[in-house]
Amino acid sequence: MEYTPIKLREKLSKFSEHWSPKIIAQMNDYHFKLVKFSGDFVWHRHDETDEVFMVLEGEMSIQFRDGKARLRAGELFVVPKGVEHKPFAESECHVLLVEPSGTINTGSAGGERTAADNVWI
Amino acid sequence: MEYTPIKLREKLSKFSEHWSPKIIAQMNDYHFKLVKFSGDFVWHRHDETDEVFMVLEGEMSIQFRDGKARLRAGELFVVPKGVEHKPFAESECHVLLVEPSGTINTGSAGGERTAADNVWI
Repeated sequence: MEYTPIKLREKLSKFSEHWSPKIIAQMNDYHFKLVKFSGDFVWHRHDETDEVFMVLEGEMSIQFRDGKARLRAGELFVVPKGVEHKPFAESECHVLLVEPSGTINTGSAGGERTAADNVWI
Repeated sequence: MEYTPIKLREKLSKFSEHWSPKIIAQMNDYHFKLVKFSGDFVWHRHDETDEVFMVLEGEMSIQFRDGKARLRAGELFVVPKGVEHKPFAESECHVLLVEPSGTINTGSAGGERTAADNVWI
């Protein structure tokens, strides 16, 4: 039997909206999600969990209250739990997120930018 | 303050041995590890956890008792917990592994291919 891997490029072609993470894989109680960033997001934090950002294509930054991380393709960053952050991408950027299932994109902030948290593609 | 991201290519340049995963990041109680595969590994399983393989460069396969998955760069696969598997790479392949901290490369099999489980680069 031939098992099919998950192809990131193929999954990325299935959606175009920004700031709306889509689940592509589950490992134990963690989700791997793809998301397209463009422009500014909202300040928020995740009080219960760290969050991994891995850039697949493009460039982004993560602003913190005391500084900034800049990420390009092939780079990753772990945002520690409880730390306020605001992702930003000057032009469209494709990112792999890893975080516990049920993690909400806006974390503690809520509001109109909150995406559905359980959409598989 | 400028925070530095983790650069996969730079980390990969820091070791050359095969089948010996190196930790590059921690998210909660999970580790992100880089590993270089070449040739055959041993049959093993992880009774307590799923395991994610994401190919960064090259090609590999994961053999199961009932079939096989073939992965190329930009593809990932979740090996379910308890499922026997044997990674293989015809030529050198660079892989990102995600699994709980303390996960041993040979899982239930043990033996001489067992690598130290807590090496950061």
